[in-house]
Amino acid sequence: MQAEVIAVGTEILLGQIVDTNSAFIARGLADAGIEVYYHSLVGDNADRLTTVVNQARSRSDLVVISGGLGPTKDDLTKQTVAHLLGVKLIEDAAAMKKIQQHFEITGREMTPNNRLQALYPDGSLPLKNETGMAVGAFYRDPDAADIMLLPGPPSEAEPMFEHQALPQIIAAYHRHEFLVSKVLRFFGIGESKLVTELSDLIDHQTNPTIAPYAKVNEVTLRITARATEKAVGEQLLRDMTTTIMARVGDYFYGFGDDNSLAQVVVNELIDRKLTITAAESLTAGKFQSTLGDVPGVSAVFPGGFVTYANDAKRDLLGIPQEVIDAQGVVSEATAKEMAERSRTKLNTDFALSFTGVAGPDSLENQPAGTVWLGLAQRGKAPMAKLVHFTGNRAKIRERSVLAGLDWLRRVLRDLK
Amino acid sequence: MQAEVIAVGTEILLGQIVDTNSAFIARGLADAGIEVYYHSLVGDNADRLTTVVNQARSRSDLVVISGGLGPTKDDLTKQTVAHLLGVKLIEDAAAMKKIQQHFEITGREMTPNNRLQALYPDGSLPLKNETGMAVGAFYRDPDAADIMLLPGPPSEAEPMFEHQALPQIIAAYHRHEFLVSKVLRFFGIGESKLVTELSDLIDHQTNPTIAPYAKVNEVTLRITARATEKAVGEQLLRDMTTTIMARVGDYFYGFGDDNSLAQVVVNELIDRKLTITAAESLTAGKFQSTLGDVPGVSAVFPGGFVTYANDAKRDLLGIPQEVIDAQGVVSEATAKEMAERSRTKLNTDFALSFTGVAGPDSLENQPAGTVWLGLAQRGKAPMAKLVHFTGNRAKIRERSVLAGLDWLRRVLRDLK
Repeated sequence: MQAEVIAVGTEILLGQIVDTNSAFIARGLADAGIEVYYHSLVGDNADRLTTVVNQARSRSDLVVISGGLGPTKDDLTKQTVAHLLGVKLIEDAAAMKKIQQHFEITGREMTPNNRLQALYPDGSLPLKNETGMAVGAFYRDPDAADIMLLPGPPSEAEPMFEHQALPQIIAAYHRHEFLVSKVLRFFGIGESKLVTELSDLIDHQTNPTIAPYAKVNEVTLRITARATEKAVGEQLLRDMTTTIMARVGDYFYGFGDDNSLAQVVVNELIDRKLTITAAESLTAGKFQSTLGDVPGVSAVFPGGFVTYANDAKRDLLGIPQEVIDAQGVVSEATAKEMAERSRTKLNTDFALSFTGVAGPDSLENQPAGTVWLGLAQRGKAPMAKLVHFTGNRAKIRERSVLAGLDWLRRVLRDLK
Repeated sequence: MQAEVIAVGTEILLGQIVDTNSAFIARGLADAGIEVYYHSLVGDNADRLTTVVNQARSRSDLVVISGGLGPTKDDLTKQTVAHLLGVKLIEDAAAMKKIQQHFEITGREMTPNNRLQALYPDGSLPLKNETGMAVGAFYRDPDAADIMLLPGPPSEAEPMFEHQALPQIIAAYHRHEFLVSKVLRFFGIGESKLVTELSDLIDHQTNPTIAPYAKVNEVTLRITARATEKAVGEQLLRDMTTTIMARVGDYFYGFGDDNSLAQVVVNELIDRKLTITAAESLTAGKFQSTLGDVPGVSAVFPGGFVTYANDAKRDLLGIPQEVIDAQGVVSEATAKEMAERSRTKLNTDFALSFTGVAGPDSLENQPAGTVWLGLAQRGKAPMAKLVHFTGNRAKIRERSVLAGLDWLRRVLRDLK
């Protein structure tokens, strides 16, 4: 079973909007265990659309097309597909009624081309559009590849695909198999190193499959298992997870597609009722703002300091001018002072500090990317750590924040 | 002259990430007057990539491919293309040096596959990667379609396309014409409103062309003119800019592809030697961190306060508990107190404050998205402004920061 995805629209062809439908559709097909090898994109042009659809039909069992079902003269996907299939377009009564009602309610004049939205290729199953006017279609062809038509706007295509199309696809092609998957997230290890550590597993993968993905500043692994019983698939996932964790578990910080280092750290603080603050120089509030991304953080984060200039370090935190003068502002001593003094001022359990060279210029003869992190903990002596980053100013600041979060994650883990 | 765009990557094929490179590339090609009729997308698979590249070469003059230049085993775009062209891969010395330096500086172990990123097909022009490791390539084929290779991550593909690839494309295919373009950036006006205001200009565009793009939280217009003399093209741009500014100039904040509201505001402060601080509640440091993105900000930004909890507003800023109790923390009075007290504490010319409901829960019976901004200015009474945003927590915080920046931009503009 193999499917192919086509997006239609001159606006997306010219890059004026980004096609997100194809990714959405491909994800749903992958979850349903249907293989996809090609996506294509064409403008609203009957000849080129015909070329692309015929090619897709020649190598796949199902072709899912989004776009070009609207009322304007540019929209010609269903006319083109009906012509290619040698069938007429017929009217869907429910869709027609919805269109008429819309014009009655809004008091706007209904033009003849609005009727077009209720048409679909004869012999198809019409697919209801919950959030728009244009009806979709699922055409099953006993002699060639099936065709599915979806509208272009993601606000219409996504619900139609999820609620109408996907259930039809599963009913039509499902092989009585369950597909289960799990995402493992890693920080502090590059994609190439992770892949090297797991190369034998990746090379010999069959079931489960292991797919590494380099994200911005982190790497994820998606493990996917197939089985005729769900519990069997889940056991396969658990076993593979154990094997992977034994090798690279030190860099693992959490599960899930929708997770982040900040979420893991903040939720750990909330669970343990441990409070935090920060004093930030080069990051200028980015660490605290990242904590602020996580709902519920107010329970553990009262606020903190942005001490960009030396005067602010002295005036807001009370760091002695002598420390800055003698050790430098990008120094172990200053990082420790910033962390401990901010922690004391807000009486929290932890404090992080960030002082370094964001660039592009060097500072105190230290090159851009030189960063001291400080970590203060109630009842313990403050610690500091020197790190070096490459990249531009934005990257250096971003990586500083993540390094701080990861340090705190490890300290919290080792508290256990 | 016809080009075709191909994206490579199993992750995008399966819909785990959305391909934005193809749209970015298509837009640049369209601006350069090069027609694009097809985009394709394949996974990291040599056979299918070969099929797609050969097909594209059979019907186009230039094939622009992004993705698959990385260091993992999955990445095989340049190996596949070199094989298809019948050339070897050779090493780019500059790229190799950058890779080695990265591993030296970060102290991470360099694995052999990292060297792969410095290779490119023999006979190509290597394209420098400003923001990453993998070198790109432009292969000109006297007998068949040319091929351009770009990296997959948009943070690398976009600058490489814009700064390296596009100038090469224009030099290669538009030898006798100058193409000049200008980007105008707008904040506080939606794309549909902007397009409506300029509809006659957009409908009748020939030279210059006008292309509106909806970005996150802003809209840009790219005006592109072609002429046999550069000065003529630039005059066309200036005339069109004047026409556009007469209609929507109030929302205009700056020129350039690589610009932002923060850059415009910070550079204005630097030029005028005016200093700034902030006190942030719901934004939790995001405003200050955004100022920190701009190089040179240290001249005007000493630091500031993150006062997330009420206690921090009282303890760090000295806001009387009675004000908070009587007016509420999300109130005009609190916003003004936060702005004025932070300004006084750091003795700056300006201070911004942010207090509101980031969500998902409501606060003080005010729904998520309710935000008070405060603005204090030396020698003037502090001001406050109530704004309402929709969207999730991240959007509300981001839009609050931008609203603050835009307010400050307008205040600075009206100082003149």
